[in-house]
Amino acid sequence: MPDLFDVAAIGNAIVDVIAPCDDAFLTAEGLVKNSMQLIDETQAEQLYGRMAPGMETSGGSAGNTVAGVASFGGRAAYMGKVARDQLGDVFAHDMRAIGVAFDTAPLTGGAATARSLINVTPDGHRTMNTFLGASTELTPDDVDAAVIEGAKIVYLEGYLFDPSEARRAFAKAAGLARASGRLMAITLSDSFVVERHRAALLGFIETECDIVLANEAEVKALFETDDFDQAAAALASRTKVCAITRSEAGSLVFAGQAPHVIAAVPVEKVVDTTGAGDQYAAGFLLGLARGRSMDVCGRLGALAAAEVIGHYGPRPQVSLEALAKAEGLF
Amino acid sequence: MPDLFDVAAIGNAIVDVIAPCDDAFLTAEGLVKNSMQLIDETQAEQLYGRMAPGMETSGGSAGNTVAGVASFGGRAAYMGKVARDQLGDVFAHDMRAIGVAFDTAPLTGGAATARSLINVTPDGHRTMNTFLGASTELTPDDVDAAVIEGAKIVYLEGYLFDPSEARRAFAKAAGLARASGRLMAITLSDSFVVERHRAALLGFIETECDIVLANEAEVKALFETDDFDQAAAALASRTKVCAITRSEAGSLVFAGQAPHVIAAVPVEKVVDTTGAGDQYAAGFLLGLARGRSMDVCGRLGALAAAEVIGHYGPRPQVSLEALAKAEGLF
Repeated sequence: MPDLFDVAAIGNAIVDVIAPCDDAFLTAEGLVKNSMQLIDETQAEQLYGRMAPGMETSGGSAGNTVAGVASFGGRAAYMGKVARDQLGDVFAHDMRAIGVAFDTAPLTGGAATARSLINVTPDGHRTMNTFLGASTELTPDDVDAAVIEGAKIVYLEGYLFDPSEARRAFAKAAGLARASGRLMAITLSDSFVVERHRAALLGFIETECDIVLANEAEVKALFETDDFDQAAAALASRTKVCAITRSEAGSLVFAGQAPHVIAAVPVEKVVDTTGAGDQYAAGFLLGLARGRSMDVCGRLGALAAAEVIGHYGPRPQVSLEALAKAEGLF
Repeated sequence: MPDLFDVAAIGNAIVDVIAPCDDAFLTAEGLVKNSMQLIDETQAEQLYGRMAPGMETSGGSAGNTVAGVASFGGRAAYMGKVARDQLGDVFAHDMRAIGVAFDTAPLTGGAATARSLINVTPDGHRTMNTFLGASTELTPDDVDAAVIEGAKIVYLEGYLFDPSEARRAFAKAAGLARASGRLMAITLSDSFVVERHRAALLGFIETECDIVLANEAEVKALFETDDFDQAAAALASRTKVCAITRSEAGSLVFAGQAPHVIAAVPVEKVVDTTGAGDQYAAGFLLGLARGRSMDVCGRLGALAAAEVIGHYGPRPQVSLEALAKAEGLF
């Protein structure tokens, strides 16, 4: 099979509803800052009714990552389920407009397109409440074998462990990727996701996965320790390649036991951290797909993360390829 | 009738779809930079299909203005027609979330909520293509007499001259405002709107209107001259109060023949001029409603315009009231 794509991703297809809030709002709503919590449609309507005016942008963790890969000039594909409604049209447009191959049939007659209600505090931190809607209806039939078999890296969200149908789609994609010798990558997604699915995630990492992306909280949750160095070493010993992001402290990339320490790219003002990890993954995975050194992979990730946290919204607003060229990384 | 509102506005209720583009895109699409052009649904789908990934935000000129009035801490009401669909829900939420009274019944079974496809060039200038959709179904029945009669200032868009039903709603609101002795304000909206409806706009200004907002291109179009001073003097002689905005050259406020010259508020980087005139109107009208001097009214307008052009989207992302207090204007 020829290499059709640098990265093919599967994820929960979500439109973000982003609004500013203060910390008191999070407290009053009982929300855990920086986390992702699942809510049902009624809860979504109630919370939305109390949120400030917002903006709508295409989101979804893996969707953001492939949009970033495309912005770097990479070839990307995406599978995820939206509904045949206005927000679903927005999601599909935004994917195709940046050049991502996206052909999952939209859901008709069921739930609406998934929405993540994202409250952003003045320090730029985002707290997400997600109504999964149509995204949970992604089935194994939606996994296109030709796309998986033609991708250098197949990238999956830990978030996919929540909906049972999506988890079956995840398993099908993993099987196809393994059978065709493709690299398999996963992001741990969220520390609560790790708590809910620790055993399954660990099993997948140890037996099927080549590349793991995580942040500090997620890797600590995975190994049930507060000792970051211990958690990082535990992850590194179980994977061929892993990258662990630590916000302004940069990231660690392991391909073996000794970490490559990658500095964060300075940002004038952190407006909205939504998408920071997703864009780090975009740079890191595209670097891997193109055979760059671990240092360059990490720096591409850091560059993309810095772009996205400087504005509202989880996807790049400028060409990441141009930024990478300006930094001498391409 | 007590004063229920500082400003009550009627406008085309529109959701903005904002995407970056380069100047070559405008040329290829045959678009006139900085203008607003009306398109039908098919044209909207075709143009959207060629646009970059975007973001969706509530818009509509007068809608943006009352959102600005509310952000300044003013009491505002809005009348405009959305459809009962996802984008209509977004529009209604964003109005109510900032405290604007908005009770126009959504349209069911007809056209979708209006969308303005806004392409923003790297210099920050916006070019709009608008599918009016459900907004054209605003009828005189949608004009709430109690709101009009309880507003210090009734504010109408020149854009309302395009849809015939909306124009009848406009006329009803004007009649109610005049009968109850309320101040009547209008924005000329766009130079092409002025070309299409010059005689009607001039007649309205001369016989029914107290306050006119316009930019340089619109006032030149109104009086069919390239001589700005002549056009400004012609407008000033026909109105009690008018404000003419000139982008980075600031604005002129007339209450009589001698203009108050108001400097623009410097902006670090002009990201997106969408909403600049609308937010100027917000500050200016709230100042008038609160009985401030012409200088302060103009400076409130300039302050609001500067906030909105520093980011994507036509409505303030921070409290304009807090900005005004920090500048000693409140």
